[in-house]
Amino acid sequence: MAKITQVSPLAPKNGFPNLPVVRGVRFSTVAAGVKYQDRTDVMLCSLVPGTTIAGTFTRSSTRAAPVLDCQAKINGEGTGAAAFLVNSGNSNAFTGKLGVASVQAVTSAASEVLGIDADRIFMASTGVIGEPLEHDRIIAKLDTLRDTLSDQGIEAAARAIMTTDTYPKGAGKTIEIGGQTVKIAGFAKGSGMIAPDMATMLVYLFTDAKISRDLLQQYTSEMCDATFNQITVDSDTSTSDTLLVAATGTSAVDIDAAGTADKKVFAEALHDVMLDLAHQVVKDGEGATKFVSVNVTNAATKDDARKVAMAIANSPLVKTAIAGEDPNWGRIVMAVGKSGAQADRDKLTIRFGDILVAENGWVSPSYREEDGAQYMKNEKVTISVDIGLGTMNTTVWTCDLTHGYISINADYRS
Amino acid sequence: MAKITQVSPLAPKNGFPNLPVVRGVRFSTVAAGVKYQDRTDVMLCSLVPGTTIAGTFTRSSTRAAPVLDCQAKINGEGTGAAAFLVNSGNSNAFTGKLGVASVQAVTSAASEVLGIDADRIFMASTGVIGEPLEHDRIIAKLDTLRDTLSDQGIEAAARAIMTTDTYPKGAGKTIEIGGQTVKIAGFAKGSGMIAPDMATMLVYLFTDAKISRDLLQQYTSEMCDATFNQITVDSDTSTSDTLLVAATGTSAVDIDAAGTADKKVFAEALHDVMLDLAHQVVKDGEGATKFVSVNVTNAATKDDARKVAMAIANSPLVKTAIAGEDPNWGRIVMAVGKSGAQADRDKLTIRFGDILVAENGWVSPSYREEDGAQYMKNEKVTISVDIGLGTMNTTVWTCDLTHGYISINADYRS
Repeated sequence: MAKITQVSPLAPKNGFPNLPVVRGVRFSTVAAGVKYQDRTDVMLCSLVPGTTIAGTFTRSSTRAAPVLDCQAKINGEGTGAAAFLVNSGNSNAFTGKLGVASVQAVTSAASEVLGIDADRIFMASTGVIGEPLEHDRIIAKLDTLRDTLSDQGIEAAARAIMTTDTYPKGAGKTIEIGGQTVKIAGFAKGSGMIAPDMATMLVYLFTDAKISRDLLQQYTSEMCDATFNQITVDSDTSTSDTLLVAATGTSAVDIDAAGTADKKVFAEALHDVMLDLAHQVVKDGEGATKFVSVNVTNAATKDDARKVAMAIANSPLVKTAIAGEDPNWGRIVMAVGKSGAQADRDKLTIRFGDILVAENGWVSPSYREEDGAQYMKNEKVTISVDIGLGTMNTTVWTCDLTHGYISINADYRS
Repeated sequence: MAKITQVSPLAPKNGFPNLPVVRGVRFSTVAAGVKYQDRTDVMLCSLVPGTTIAGTFTRSSTRAAPVLDCQAKINGEGTGAAAFLVNSGNSNAFTGKLGVASVQAVTSAASEVLGIDADRIFMASTGVIGEPLEHDRIIAKLDTLRDTLSDQGIEAAARAIMTTDTYPKGAGKTIEIGGQTVKIAGFAKGSGMIAPDMATMLVYLFTDAKISRDLLQQYTSEMCDATFNQITVDSDTSTSDTLLVAATGTSAVDIDAAGTADKKVFAEALHDVMLDLAHQVVKDGEGATKFVSVNVTNAATKDDARKVAMAIANSPLVKTAIAGEDPNWGRIVMAVGKSGAQADRDKLTIRFGDILVAENGWVSPSYREEDGAQYMKNEKVTISVDIGLGTMNTTVWTCDLTHGYISINADYRS
C-alpha cells in the first residue's frame, strides 16, 4: 500500500471530536495483524440486550461475504445483546466459498466468546479485494477484545477500521426530547471507491433512544439517501459498504411514542450526524485538497437534478480544473450536457459561490475571470447550476481530483 | 494551456501514414491566430460537386453552435461543391447568440470566397468552451486558404485541427471492387473529453466511391457505433463532436449498384479506417501510457455487455491500477458490481490477456500474481470478463489514468 503520510488538508482542525457517550455501547480494538503491521485492525462493539438495529448496504452485484451475511440478519427478530465486529486490511470480497466460511468462522467464534447469538453479530471487512481473509488471526484475539471493552473507546474504534483514511471520522449530537437528553454518536471510514450507493465506506451510529426497528430503519434509509448517497469521490462503488445504526434504548426517551415534533427533532439530529460524517468522508477523499458542493436547482425532475449534480461531481475534467484552481466553467456546461438530463443551454445559470458566471447561454456580462480565479483558491468551493426548467433541487458533495489520487491508487497493493 | 512537449508513447512508431489521395478532395491550412501562436489553426477542405456527405454528432444537450449548424445542413438536398472548415483553439461552445452569429459570419464569407452554397459548408470548432470565437481572424484568411488548396495536404490538415493531441492521426485503405480501386482516407483529432457519444473529437473521412447519401449515412452510423462510440478516455462527453464522411464519386465504383459482397467490402474498409483512427485517439488519451482493450462476453443483453465494459473502462480505480502496472483484478470485480448490469459473482471469469485470473467467485488456483504483474508491464493490455449469463459480447477501448492526465487538465486554460 502507498504510504499515506500526510493528513488531508481538509481534516477537522481540532482532531477527533469529543463525542457523547451512549450508554449500552462499548468498544475494544486490537492489532491482529490481518494485513497491517504496527496498528490496530480489528474493532469490536458490544450492544446491550434490547438494542434495535437498522442498516443500509452497497447495491453492488459483487458485494462481499460479510455484507451478504449482514443483509440476511438485519431484519431478524432477536432482541438479545448484539455486536459489531470489523476488520480492516482485507475486505473479504470476491473470495468465493472461502469468504463465506470466514464470516461463518468468525461470527461463530465470536458468538461463543461473547455469549451473543450469532444472528446478532454483524461483521464487516474493508481493504483489499480478492485475497482470503486470515480469519484465524481475528479469532485468536476475540478473548482480548471481550476483556478490554470500554464505553470510552469510540475514537480508537474509528481508528481501527481505517484503510487509506488519513484521519478518524467521528460525529455526535445531544438533543432534548420531552426534557430528557438523547445522545447520538457515530464514526465512519472511507476515502476511495466512494460513490452513490455508498462507498468503501463503513459507518456505525449509536443512540440511547428507544425506537422500534421499523421506525429506525425508516429514518436510517431516509437520512442515508440525503447524506451518504449524495457524496462521490471517484464514482467507484465499493463491494463492502455498510451502515448500521444501533439504538440501545438506555435513555428514557421512546421515539415511537413521541409526538411529531419530537420525532422530527430526533430524525434531524440523526441526519446532522450522518451529514457531518458524510462530509468528513469526502474531505478525506484520496488526494483531496478541495471540498466541493454542487447545487442543482430548478431541474424538471428530481432524477434530472441528481443526474446533473452527479455528472458535474464525477467529471474528471471538472475535478482536475478545481484541483488546478481554474474557474473553467466550460467544463460545467460540458458536464450538464453529457448528464442525460433535460437541459436548455440558454436557460442555464452557473455560479461559483455567489459569483454569477454564466447565464442566457453565455458568460455573464458582469463576470470577471479574476473573480472566478480568486474564488477557486478557497478550500471550500460551491458550484451552483440553475437548470431553469422546473422546481426540483439537489446537492451533492465531492472533492477535487489531484496527483495525490493517482499516487495513492497506482500502487495501492504494491 | 499546459505545454505538451512529449509525444504519446503509444503514438504510431512510423509517424503519420502515407495515405491514398482521394480525387476531388483538396486541403489547405493557415495560421490565423485564433488562439494559438506559431502554428496552423484553420483547415479548409474543398469537395467537388456531386460529393455526398454523411455525419454523426455529439448528443450533448449543450452542443456547440457549429454542431447545431452542421446538423441542420447534413440532410440537405444540395449536390454542388462542398467544404469542411475547421478551427482549433476555440470550440465556440456555450457562446450564446454570438456563437451562432460567428458560424453564420464564417460560412457566409466562405460561401462568397469559395463560390460554394453556404448550405454545403460544414464548420467545426474545437478548443476552449465559453469564449467568443474571433471569427474575423478566420475570415481574413479565407482567400489564402482558397488559393493554397492541394490534394497533398491531408497531413497538414490533420495537424491544424489538433488541440491537446500530441500527434496527428491519419488512416486509410485502398480496396478493389469489381476490378476498380476505391480509396478511403481520413484523419481525426481528440485526446481528452473522450467518451461514448463520441468526444472532443473531430473526424473527417473521404472516399472516391460513388454512394448515395442514405447508404453512406447508414454505413457511417453503423461503423461509428462500432468504433468511435466504443472508446473512452475519461467518460466526459464533448459539446463539439463531429464526424463527417464525404464520398466524391470520382472513382468509377458505384456502391449502391454493387452486389452484397462488394457492399460489404466497402463497409468493412470504412470500419477499418474508423477503428484505426478511434484507436489512435485513445492512444493519444491525455497522459496515456497504456492502450487497454476491454472484452466482455456472454452477458445477458447487449446493453449489459456495454455497461460492464464501460464501467471497467471508465473506473478511475481500474485505470490508475493499470497506470501503476498493478494486476489489481479486485477493482475489475468492483467495476462489474457497480455497472448495474446483471451479474453473478460466482459465474464471472476474468482474464488478463491469456492469463486466467479469476473464476468461480475467486482467484483461479492456476493464477500467479507474478504472471499478472509481468503482463501489466505490456504497453497493450487486454482485460476480458466473461459474465456467464448469456451470449452478448462487446469490446471497448481506453487508456490508463496517470499523473499526465492531471497535469494536462489541472491547468488547461492557464
